[in-house]
Amino acid sequence: MALLVQKYGGTSVGSPERIQAVAARVARARRRGDDVVVVVSAMGHTTDELIDLARNVAGHDDCVHEHPREMDMLLSAGERISMALLAMAIREAGADARSLTGSQAAIITDAWHTSARIVEVRADRVRETVEGGCVAIVAGFQGVSTTREITTLGRGGSDTTAVALARALGADRCEIYTDVDGIFTCDPRRVPDARIIPRISHDEMVELAQSGAQVMHARAVDLGARTPALDIRVLSSFVTGPDEDDPTRGTLITDDPMVREDQVVTGLASARGYAKLLLHALPAGMRTPTEMLGALADAGVSVDMVTESPQADGRVLLQLTVRGDDLARAREIAAQVAARLGGGGAMDERTGLSRIALVGRGMSGRPGVYAQAFRALMDAGVKVEAVSTSSISITLLVPSDQEDEALRALHDGFTLAAQAEAPAAAAVAG
Amino acid sequence: MALLVQKYGGTSVGSPERIQAVAARVARARRRGDDVVVVVSAMGHTTDELIDLARNVAGHDDCVHEHPREMDMLLSAGERISMALLAMAIREAGADARSLTGSQAAIITDAWHTSARIVEVRADRVRETVEGGCVAIVAGFQGVSTTREITTLGRGGSDTTAVALARALGADRCEIYTDVDGIFTCDPRRVPDARIIPRISHDEMVELAQSGAQVMHARAVDLGARTPALDIRVLSSFVTGPDEDDPTRGTLITDDPMVREDQVVTGLASARGYAKLLLHALPAGMRTPTEMLGALADAGVSVDMVTESPQADGRVLLQLTVRGDDLARAREIAAQVAARLGGGGAMDERTGLSRIALVGRGMSGRPGVYAQAFRALMDAGVKVEAVSTSSISITLLVPSDQEDEALRALHDGFTLAAQAEAPAAAAVAG
Repeated sequence: MALLVQKYGGTSVGSPERIQAVAARVARARRRGDDVVVVVSAMGHTTDELIDLARNVAGHDDCVHEHPREMDMLLSAGERISMALLAMAIREAGADARSLTGSQAAIITDAWHTSARIVEVRADRVRETVEGGCVAIVAGFQGVSTTREITTLGRGGSDTTAVALARALGADRCEIYTDVDGIFTCDPRRVPDARIIPRISHDEMVELAQSGAQVMHARAVDLGARTPALDIRVLSSFVTGPDEDDPTRGTLITDDPMVREDQVVTGLASARGYAKLLLHALPAGMRTPTEMLGALADAGVSVDMVTESPQADGRVLLQLTVRGDDLARAREIAAQVAARLGGGGAMDERTGLSRIALVGRGMSGRPGVYAQAFRALMDAGVKVEAVSTSSISITLLVPSDQEDEALRALHDGFTLAAQAEAPAAAAVAG
Repeated sequence: MALLVQKYGGTSVGSPERIQAVAARVARARRRGDDVVVVVSAMGHTTDELIDLARNVAGHDDCVHEHPREMDMLLSAGERISMALLAMAIREAGADARSLTGSQAAIITDAWHTSARIVEVRADRVRETVEGGCVAIVAGFQGVSTTREITTLGRGGSDTTAVALARALGADRCEIYTDVDGIFTCDPRRVPDARIIPRISHDEMVELAQSGAQVMHARAVDLGARTPALDIRVLSSFVTGPDEDDPTRGTLITDDPMVREDQVVTGLASARGYAKLLLHALPAGMRTPTEMLGALADAGVSVDMVTESPQADGRVLLQLTVRGDDLARAREIAAQVAARLGGGGAMDERTGLSRIALVGRGMSGRPGVYAQAFRALMDAGVKVEAVSTSSISITLLVPSDQEDEALRALHDGFTLAAQAEAPAAAAVAG
């Protein structure tokens, strides 16, 4: 008899039929003798519909900034609906169930409306519910602040609720049910022979999520990574039939990822909407990047990759990668700082860029990976605009119109399709 | 500077535009210097839509009985949406506002899911909110039980929340905003020259509400009637322009109704769907009505009017008025009891009947009213099937196809149109 925490996202409870399917699975787990805590998101498009209503009532689109407290109150209605419906469906399927709001489940957060952080989970009531033979259905995404205000957790909130609850309860398993089959080596819409990654470490998953992999939010994975690490399984809620209860399906995010010795890259992720700013003829020396990056950070512009290269005249060229949305602001601030530094002020920019991340624990301390990635892209005729590396990732900036080619070239170059298919028996602990 | 409690029903907040109109009124009251507590229902058809969802998920229509706890959780989402939207709209209109759930506002109820009763209102947080210069928007219809469960109050719930809060806060005024202009002398769809009743006592209003007047629920009025009585104004939220802030518009439910000496009947109400059961040739004596009514009450059949009349053979005819829905059950039970009593067992019934109530404190101790009502109906050719009286009402049973004629005849006979229009200066305390 295990204690499971299962999280179901919006599409998994998007219709009465989907809710009934989830209920059937939960009831089956109860009949097997498992205790189950379910964390549930709002149904399908409920959140978007509520946001539209708020915009209509307010007469503008900036409700989150103008009325953060009330937006939290409004949006928290969404999970209240889905969790009550799911509780009824589970009861109809023959198991007992009770829904609990974020407040009733004592998901205690700070007071930052619309993007609160969980500070504590007092899981007593959830535990009592489960010990009473009942499935506890907890509203994802929402909590209550220490000043008794309703809060929501922002992006990735329901995943975060599930992971925090699984930790607080000492759950045996934490399962994140979603509308795809797991974490893929690359977005299968971009690279048709992408495969499911059977096991991945928390730090790799955080890096993939931050680089555009959308299945699970980095924040929730990061919470799972803290010592002692929590294993998280990501799997589809749409699978039916004999495979449905296969304990190895989907992707296991684990501290013990059993990486194969020859596995260098675990997965790829990418995101559009980047731009590069080239600042010519700036004075050499530490002051230039320090002041430039300081001024941009003060203005809330996040700079992703920075390269400084000497010019023939002894001055330097600074290249900064920013989000396309931030480009105008970055350009303005850069011009001010360049003037202050006595720089030439000549500027250039490239827009329409994509950021690709190759992520893998296996690349750590392995010198050839960078060259291998470059060669794969060069052979595919992809122009690389910038590169940066960390111990478990290489990040590349490429033109967005070459993003798919780049992903395919890298996916092939590192034989990701083959390695994800290799049986677990051939793997060694990583 | 007064403290107002204003309640807005579902149609009053049925669209973004309606919510903005309510917000404008509330903001105006704040600018006048009044403190405002708003009690709000779910928007328009939200509750019906949520019930439909629950039925689809459960696969049957009896969710209220099968899943009462979860129905409360589900339905309470409705006010959460409307109150958050209204708070945003009020903030946009220039006043500060915060929404509070039934739980946050400490509307403490018993544990009867879907029809809970308020046991206490701990209005501290509402009071603090108002004292902080903020409009407090409280979810109507919902509360929290002493075991920390979300409850709903059932029919008339939001009105009841408003009256209970107004009492707990010691509010100066309690205003129930609705989609009609006030309490009418009779349903204006039935009697075109029906007029608004300017003042009515709590007991008259309870009687009208129980007899079919649908503007305000008897339960909330009854709560307002307890000593010291709370004045409640019922008025339309759809009035705009110069009349909008007229302090005398609508109907005032008050302990001091200033009834005119010549006012006998204050208003009329009616409801369809009644039936009459005639039980012939029962033994005379107390045992007959006692056993008959006892057996019906035990079976949950509510009997409205009872008349016993002697027959030529020394036996009696018992006539019972019941809801049409209960007729089959009543007939079955009556047959059993008649057999046990040794009665003849001959039975007759009339269906398709309407119950009309004439309500007025002025009829108390005035002998001619009954006769006057009868004459009005006789002149109009209406057949009266049964009559009963209380100190402030006369109840008549008529064929439903003559209901409108009966209402018009009584409305004319007691000159209700004229008396409601008489100026308040001509009135004396009642």
